[in-house]
Amino acid sequence: MIEPRTLKGFRDFLPNEARKRQYVINTLKSVLELYGFEPLETPALEYEEILNGKYGEEGDKLMYRFEDNGKRRVALRYDQTVPLSRVVAQYQNELPFPFKRYQIQPVWRAENTQKGRFREFLQCDADSVGVNSSLADAEIIRVVIASLENLGFKKFTINVNDRANFTGIDPLAILTIDKLKKIGKDGVLKELQEKGLPTNSLDQILGKNVTPRLEEFTQILNDQRVSFDSTLARGLDYYTGLIFEVEVDGYTAGSVCGGGRYDNLIGMFAGRQVPAVGFAFGFDRLMEAMEQLNLFPTDLQTAKVLVTIFNTDLRDKSLELSSRLRSNKINTELYLDENAKMEKQLKYANQKGIPYVIIIGPEEAAKNTVQLKNMGSREQKELPLEEVIKLLK
Amino acid sequence: MIEPRTLKGFRDFLPNEARKRQYVINTLKSVLELYGFEPLETPALEYEEILNGKYGEEGDKLMYRFEDNGKRRVALRYDQTVPLSRVVAQYQNELPFPFKRYQIQPVWRAENTQKGRFREFLQCDADSVGVNSSLADAEIIRVVIASLENLGFKKFTINVNDRANFTGIDPLAILTIDKLKKIGKDGVLKELQEKGLPTNSLDQILGKNVTPRLEEFTQILNDQRVSFDSTLARGLDYYTGLIFEVEVDGYTAGSVCGGGRYDNLIGMFAGRQVPAVGFAFGFDRLMEAMEQLNLFPTDLQTAKVLVTIFNTDLRDKSLELSSRLRSNKINTELYLDENAKMEKQLKYANQKGIPYVIIIGPEEAAKNTVQLKNMGSREQKELPLEEVIKLLK
Repeated sequence: MIEPRTLKGFRDFLPNEARKRQYVINTLKSVLELYGFEPLETPALEYEEILNGKYGEEGDKLMYRFEDNGKRRVALRYDQTVPLSRVVAQYQNELPFPFKRYQIQPVWRAENTQKGRFREFLQCDADSVGVNSSLADAEIIRVVIASLENLGFKKFTINVNDRANFTGIDPLAILTIDKLKKIGKDGVLKELQEKGLPTNSLDQILGKNVTPRLEEFTQILNDQRVSFDSTLARGLDYYTGLIFEVEVDGYTAGSVCGGGRYDNLIGMFAGRQVPAVGFAFGFDRLMEAMEQLNLFPTDLQTAKVLVTIFNTDLRDKSLELSSRLRSNKINTELYLDENAKMEKQLKYANQKGIPYVIIIGPEEAAKNTVQLKNMGSREQKELPLEEVIKLLK
Repeated sequence: MIEPRTLKGFRDFLPNEARKRQYVINTLKSVLELYGFEPLETPALEYEEILNGKYGEEGDKLMYRFEDNGKRRVALRYDQTVPLSRVVAQYQNELPFPFKRYQIQPVWRAENTQKGRFREFLQCDADSVGVNSSLADAEIIRVVIASLENLGFKKFTINVNDRANFTGIDPLAILTIDKLKKIGKDGVLKELQEKGLPTNSLDQILGKNVTPRLEEFTQILNDQRVSFDSTLARGLDYYTGLIFEVEVDGYTAGSVCGGGRYDNLIGMFAGRQVPAVGFAFGFDRLMEAMEQLNLFPTDLQTAKVLVTIFNTDLRDKSLELSSRLRSNKINTELYLDENAKMEKQLKYANQKGIPYVIIIGPEEAAKNTVQLKNMGSREQKELPLEEVIKLLK
């Protein structure tokens, strides 16, 4: 016998969890499509050289990479921005620009799982490629706001900054200053000293103001939930303009979404500068925040009703009714074992959270009625077929 | 500069193709949920020992496997049936049975790509686990039929057989006889001889009949599209009862769906026998068949309308209208460059197949109207805002 187990940092999503994930994915998709973003899919495996060196030293270390059967060096998708950049370069003559795409696929990083991080996780990205307008920047934030609103979040803040504010400041110092909220001013100063970095860079950054470009963006967006934060840096070094992170009120484990403008990354593949701006939702944080704030609908069950089977003689009655319910677009589960006791069938519905159960015994079959049991209230009533269909629809 | 390229056998799906894929996935999901199947997701990477030896010699050769950073032997998902079996064993105490799950995820096989095969491809599986009833067998086929019908297929055949028909016949001979449709009777006899296998096994198999179990299944299903084929064998050796393959009229590249009953596989992980029956759609074949038979809807565009920007002064008018259209749930793309010529904006809509374009010039802005251009008929008319919303809704 082989021990059934999963790798550390990798997860199975059983139906209850998978349904919640689908709900969030579908909500995000519908918002993105409302704004004209189009789907894109890229392969899980890329040539290693496509991903190498794009995510800093840390990224190179955490990447899953190996040699395939054909002796090619390959790596698993580490994010969706680099694959997007490759795609834009590869198909630049056939893609219409602006190219507005979204992408919702898993990425893989060999993270230290003790931090509660996962090694396989979903990312939800949207980017506008080929325009450097503030209009594009504002739309990206507008989509983030609409996404959060549609998921049910009531209060959140979009912290923004402009990478131009870091001109002339040591890039390593920026990485330290980015931790200001986590480790405080003293912590930052200490770390700057320890690393031999200029300690005055913190004051320099704290003194920065809204740039003209941010001014224009803010005016177009016109939303009170946007807040300027001169210390916001974002880890990745490919950003060139607007950068932002989203904090949700009542959820303290970190930002649920981040992004910004990166006008030089695509050029590494395309051989010409192609501006871009976009965001990525951290899917697991989003799910966690929704769970904590109780934002999931309570009616995410797959089946609305379980049709039980009274006995073999009455099996066809239950089969027939199931068909009729389904042709009325009612999600219907038929219990698949005609020899199971009714008690077992009811227990099954209960365990799965199916809200209604139908029983057709000999009396009901003779009268063309059914017993409809509401599993929440435990109420049961006899109804003609037509009534049941109307009620469940 | 890094050359932008994809690995052989791996594909990018640009928006037009990705949209079609989503359409098929969503259609399949809605049918599966109509029958009470629930979503399941498993990781892309598994311990190698979970997958090893489950797919025969060929499978072991084609599997993507490597050592991860923690020196674990890991392998990429090769199908969804073995991960399902692992899941059922791992969570057997918390899962309600029957466990009816669907799973739509990519799998990876280092196939010879010259045959037009891919190394990363989507599988769409549905299985009923924990019941060995003919009712479960019949429901699996019923779901296949409903899926095909909902995708628009008019004529197809479900070829069925019972693995019991192969009792006492050399397993290697079965693999050869499985090729009967491809290589003909003479081809099969020749191959049997070449491989030193009993040539009378073909006649033995051709003489087989519908088993009592198939009889019961056929009676429950009661569908003319099911056809008995005693030579149908299915490659994989884990099947134990019903096996089937689906052929679509007018599509000759192979079966679009196959599956069957496998009552022993899960036991390899669970330590006790757990019966199961299921199917897998070959997603690429399904897409190809739909393309050939012209079954894709013509209105799969993401955006229904492009709102152009006349000039910077009128930008806010276009922004405002876009918002209003979106709050009426009309998928709306705003052109993101206020400095682009109108001609360029119209060309963009055309290139992307967006059916309508809206123009708000100074005259329209003053009158609170818009110009609505139908990109198909090239007709253009001036309409009040309210009318446009009604028309596009």
